[in-house]
Amino acid sequence: MENFTFHNPVKVLFGKNQIAQINQEIPKDKRVLIVYGGGSVVKTGVLQRVKDALENEVVFEFGGVEANPHYETLMRAVEIVKSEKIDFLLAVGGGSVIDGTKFIAAAAMYEGDTWEIVKSYGSVVKAALPIGCVLTIAATGSEMNNVSVVTKAETKDKLFFGSPFVLPKFSVLEPEITFTLPQNQTANGVVDAFIHILEQYVTYPVNAKIPDRFAEALLKTLKEEGPKALVTPDDYDARANIMWSATMALNGILATGTPADWATHMIGQEITGLYGLDHAQTLAIVLPALWKFCKADKSAKLAQYAANVWDIPSAEEDVMADKAIEITVDFFESMGLKTHLADYGLGEEIIPHVVEKLRAHGHVNIGEKQKITAESAAEILKLAL
Amino acid sequence: MENFTFHNPVKVLFGKNQIAQINQEIPKDKRVLIVYGGGSVVKTGVLQRVKDALENEVVFEFGGVEANPHYETLMRAVEIVKSEKIDFLLAVGGGSVIDGTKFIAAAAMYEGDTWEIVKSYGSVVKAALPIGCVLTIAATGSEMNNVSVVTKAETKDKLFFGSPFVLPKFSVLEPEITFTLPQNQTANGVVDAFIHILEQYVTYPVNAKIPDRFAEALLKTLKEEGPKALVTPDDYDARANIMWSATMALNGILATGTPADWATHMIGQEITGLYGLDHAQTLAIVLPALWKFCKADKSAKLAQYAANVWDIPSAEEDVMADKAIEITVDFFESMGLKTHLADYGLGEEIIPHVVEKLRAHGHVNIGEKQKITAESAAEILKLAL
Repeated sequence: MENFTFHNPVKVLFGKNQIAQINQEIPKDKRVLIVYGGGSVVKTGVLQRVKDALENEVVFEFGGVEANPHYETLMRAVEIVKSEKIDFLLAVGGGSVIDGTKFIAAAAMYEGDTWEIVKSYGSVVKAALPIGCVLTIAATGSEMNNVSVVTKAETKDKLFFGSPFVLPKFSVLEPEITFTLPQNQTANGVVDAFIHILEQYVTYPVNAKIPDRFAEALLKTLKEEGPKALVTPDDYDARANIMWSATMALNGILATGTPADWATHMIGQEITGLYGLDHAQTLAIVLPALWKFCKADKSAKLAQYAANVWDIPSAEEDVMADKAIEITVDFFESMGLKTHLADYGLGEEIIPHVVEKLRAHGHVNIGEKQKITAESAAEILKLAL
Repeated sequence: MENFTFHNPVKVLFGKNQIAQINQEIPKDKRVLIVYGGGSVVKTGVLQRVKDALENEVVFEFGGVEANPHYETLMRAVEIVKSEKIDFLLAVGGGSVIDGTKFIAAAAMYEGDTWEIVKSYGSVVKAALPIGCVLTIAATGSEMNNVSVVTKAETKDKLFFGSPFVLPKFSVLEPEITFTLPQNQTANGVVDAFIHILEQYVTYPVNAKIPDRFAEALLKTLKEEGPKALVTPDDYDARANIMWSATMALNGILATGTPADWATHMIGQEITGLYGLDHAQTLAIVLPALWKFCKADKSAKLAQYAANVWDIPSAEEDVMADKAIEITVDFFESMGLKTHLADYGLGEEIIPHVVEKLRAHGHVNIGEKQKITAESAAEILKLAL
């Protein structure tokens, strides 16, 4: 078991009718900018419920944050924050809206070129506006962590940053809000959360039993409840179990004493940045290919995963590892996620471009053993054709 | 799945050589009172390591906090806090020292009769001195929660209070510190943590899959690693897995969306208060008796526990429940904890006294269904003879 620091002060308000409580979480008389996305929160009435709850605050709105939020869009929100003297940000949306709000919070208090926030991985951030969240999709876990992913549309650079200053003060998780999600978004969310767990779990054994077993607990829950939510979108317990799993998947608990991979995310992010595929779509393509490429290094944990999550009967480690990869691909496909680049009309021609971006971003020597070079990424992408 | 609020801002520094970091966690020039227990931290050198780390602070010491810390002792520390203008408390010890430090932190800033802090269950607490912890035994989980148990020696009242103001700012968890614990303290700690989990897990099903599976993860880890630590006290991974399990057992994660019992604790506390048994000893006596008494209400979860934690082959629910009770008793006994009042020379004569204390403290209609009356407590104690 490795040393670790765990610190997650985000307050989670979970269940039915939680939005009404946000008034107690935001100090009176704050000038609040509500940040949201494409308008589904208007249609579903969630935005109105939020505004109704903010009885004692001065409320402004900024809509139109796109999936994989654009730096250019977010900088327009920063202008409003400054001109309207906003002192609290309330993200109402999914991972993209929350990630975007984290960037706005840091950029509004940063002197200088705000792209440095992202380029420095967040190390230049020394202050940020306070943030609250009302989550509308179970997926990224952004509602309970300090990470944000932002895309510069101009250069197609999709990059993450992290800072304790952008940790939300609170996050409202109402499973019922997710009843009306389009099926593909539900599926994307489940697969995204599933892969967040795998990135922290399928590495090599260090005898850290709690993160291992917690990872297995969350994976089993998502594999059971994910399909239910597709068939019965208003199954409250399925939605609640998925939502809390997705949050727990990336709130630091699974990183308590274990190594982590994250190479699938690094490679997948470049594909989204360049070709616009959904985040979860890229992960479902890259992960199985990466596992095939790194099987020797990961076989002990792949076998453990096969046994403990999928109840694969005991066999040789290598056989178990193969079965783990196979059954994971089947699960993604059963959720409606494709697992090959060709499924999206992409072929070998993309490989040099993805590799070039990885090199430009310094994302080489990645993975839990820092062994995945730019050349390995090219090999992995070949396995993903 | 039930609604819940989760909020735990305690920073955990876990692993080897973590004490050196506390200097960065306590603001410079603070006047720090180190609170400790019976002197084992002097012998083991832990106290010296802590003092060496506090380079930029003014350090005072208060030793002699007993197991089940006495109000009377803690009030002497409050005097020192006031006379020396202490503005940071550093608990170096186990659950009793940390609980005591929480009381000192609240009492030092409370005007009026400080026993009201306990009598009000903490509701009168509106401020407290900041607290840090260096944990020396894996057991109570006090290092990552807002609860404290204090005993008034004069009246033999052992009572808990809770307040967000007494949450530690940070807790240092070094598994190596626990290598030198006496075997009975290691065993007490494992059983205490085990029962903290059971109090939140063995109630009735509400389809909250994450706290259920997390509980099972922690229980399995403790049942595997507990015996190892008794045989090989310096097994680092065993100690580390136990330590993180005990902290996770009572940091709020297991209460996310589930009912909780806590009647075993309520009854056990009166026995410690009146007769001085160790906390874990009383729990190991009361829990199996309470389960027998409440079997009909708890059988679904007892059967789930038997299957998922102890791999008991599937059978009728009632049979599974009986086996769950039996195997739990065997586990406690194998760890060296006795499970009957008679093992400590106590008999039927204690029952009216325990029941009287429960009544006096308003601890009637307890348990997850508020069904355990004073009369039921008497029946439970009969089953524990």
